[in-house]
Amino acid sequence: MAGGPSTPALAAAVASAGGLGFVAAGYRTPDQLRDDMAQLRAAVAAPFGVNLFVPGPEAGSGEALRRYADRIRPEAAALGVELGDPIWNDDFWTDKLQVLVDARPAVASFVFGCPTADEIRRLHEAGIEVWVTVNEPSEGAQARAAGADALVAQGVEAGGHRGGFGAADGRGEVGVLALTRLLAREAELPVIAGGGITDGWAIAAALTAGARAAQVGTAFLDTVEAGTSTAQRERLLTGGPTRLTRAFSGRRARGIVNRFLERYSAAAPAAYPQVNQLTSPLRAAGRQRGEADVLNLWAGQAHPLADHGVPAADVMARLERELGQALEGAAAWRRRLDPEA
Amino acid sequence: MAGGPSTPALAAAVASAGGLGFVAAGYRTPDQLRDDMAQLRAAVAAPFGVNLFVPGPEAGSGEALRRYADRIRPEAAALGVELGDPIWNDDFWTDKLQVLVDARPAVASFVFGCPTADEIRRLHEAGIEVWVTVNEPSEGAQARAAGADALVAQGVEAGGHRGGFGAADGRGEVGVLALTRLLAREAELPVIAGGGITDGWAIAAALTAGARAAQVGTAFLDTVEAGTSTAQRERLLTGGPTRLTRAFSGRRARGIVNRFLERYSAAAPAAYPQVNQLTSPLRAAGRQRGEADVLNLWAGQAHPLADHGVPAADVMARLERELGQALEGAAAWRRRLDPEA
Repeated sequence: MAGGPSTPALAAAVASAGGLGFVAAGYRTPDQLRDDMAQLRAAVAAPFGVNLFVPGPEAGSGEALRRYADRIRPEAAALGVELGDPIWNDDFWTDKLQVLVDARPAVASFVFGCPTADEIRRLHEAGIEVWVTVNEPSEGAQARAAGADALVAQGVEAGGHRGGFGAADGRGEVGVLALTRLLAREAELPVIAGGGITDGWAIAAALTAGARAAQVGTAFLDTVEAGTSTAQRERLLTGGPTRLTRAFSGRRARGIVNRFLERYSAAAPAAYPQVNQLTSPLRAAGRQRGEADVLNLWAGQAHPLADHGVPAADVMARLERELGQALEGAAAWRRRLDPEA
Repeated sequence: MAGGPSTPALAAAVASAGGLGFVAAGYRTPDQLRDDMAQLRAAVAAPFGVNLFVPGPEAGSGEALRRYADRIRPEAAALGVELGDPIWNDDFWTDKLQVLVDARPAVASFVFGCPTADEIRRLHEAGIEVWVTVNEPSEGAQARAAGADALVAQGVEAGGHRGGFGAADGRGEVGVLALTRLLAREAELPVIAGGGITDGWAIAAALTAGARAAQVGTAFLDTVEAGTSTAQRERLLTGGPTRLTRAFSGRRARGIVNRFLERYSAAAPAAYPQVNQLTSPLRAAGRQRGEADVLNLWAGQAHPLADHGVPAADVMARLERELGQALEGAAAWRRRLDPEA
């Protein structure tokens, strides 16, 4: 939940309630990342994870970016801002790896690609577990070959960016349950299931399907500790369907359907992070003025099941309660199907 | 699994092994449907269901259909056949309802729309349970209002046609786990979870998530009793990713990616069943000659987990064994999380 919603306070609240809180390293400078981890550590003495963006090759022609900029420029003008410079960057990859090696969080998880075997070895030597996010089974096999300790099976239900290695359209749009089962067969690594998991029933289902843990994001978007913008919180409350789009960042991501998404999805080039840079001032202005129709309203498919305006500890308590109820239901099925079990 | 794979022998084998076998009424004449049910009843004295296509309004302009026909005509010519007449039909809706009322199967399930309240009342008076297939939560509320007894939550993972009421692109592409949870909250009807459920682990997950049953299709595609074409069986064995496409029928459906799907998906109009009629001779010729690249290779996302060339009873036995293992795993989680449970 990089880019605003994730905060050290949210990770601390989750960690305090027995979850594994995550610091979002994406879009942060190395110094900010160091500070975020320090803040979390000052708040709670518990293991935590850090999520990093793996840089990809520079894709998308200058011409495609110029055409897209021309298309969306009126939106920026309407808010009285200029579009940003569509410059590729690696999100401080090398420096952030060093920050991690120094700070030694329990887990480093990755999206948008797989670190190299050397990079994974370096993290291992620092005592850091390496989780790699995948969207399709073949990515699981690649991550295993590189030395990953676990796979985050991100189903197509998930809010925000597709976190896998960038499969062709359609190919990586696998539901979380099918992906978890396919990875169990292909990759022989522990699976953390994510995507559309917003209540304890879905967590129980993921564990029953063989996942070692579940990853929950959207359920925390409208918590007190989250940094989610007011406009996005309002749209989460109103509801509405979600869709995958490249319109905001140049990389496919799931958000609640709004005007910007509907109007520009078809035109947006596959050019991350350049499109993200391009729309950045526009989105900042939208957040400031409460214009939800120009914002990237990242949310998973099960967002109507999320709580609103409560402390993260309340969400954790609900998840735990529902998880217990669901596992009780599973036990009843077991007795029914096999009275001798 | 209408259109070939489903047979009375397959439904009978499933019913004999303790499942609820289904007769596929789609594309059959009323007389064929009557015969299929009689064959099933002659083979096994067990409750069974029948799945029907609800007719939709005639959509898609003649001009769009002519353009698409021009695009794909070379494919037909290469196989030495003419394209079919793209004529709308209602798949014998009224007559088939009468056949059901007369034959009284335990369950009538529906795809592509919701029967009217009157039609549902008529089925109820004949002692038939009515299940309606939905792809998004709002469809569940509609089905409930019309009097449906249960909802088939078809996740985006499912092979074959999207069975819901025809939500706008993207909107109805909800994963089965999220859909099951959203329906539990919105519709207050029993849910049968389907889509990407090809092993007993996924069945256990669906039950744990609160579904009353799971619907399994792809797992039976390459069984001895299925009517699946040899060419499709070979492609199932080779594997490969699936995608949603309108190329074969004019309605979105999930199939294994092949040349026809890749080449014509973008051009295919939303016009069902006219496009289905158009491509019918082409597909028949493809089946006959073993040309998998022109066939609608319907399969769910978890098709790599399916068995090949075995009797359906073996699949049922595997599903049951895995279901038991998965529920045992859920019991272990319960003990771990709550030692007093």
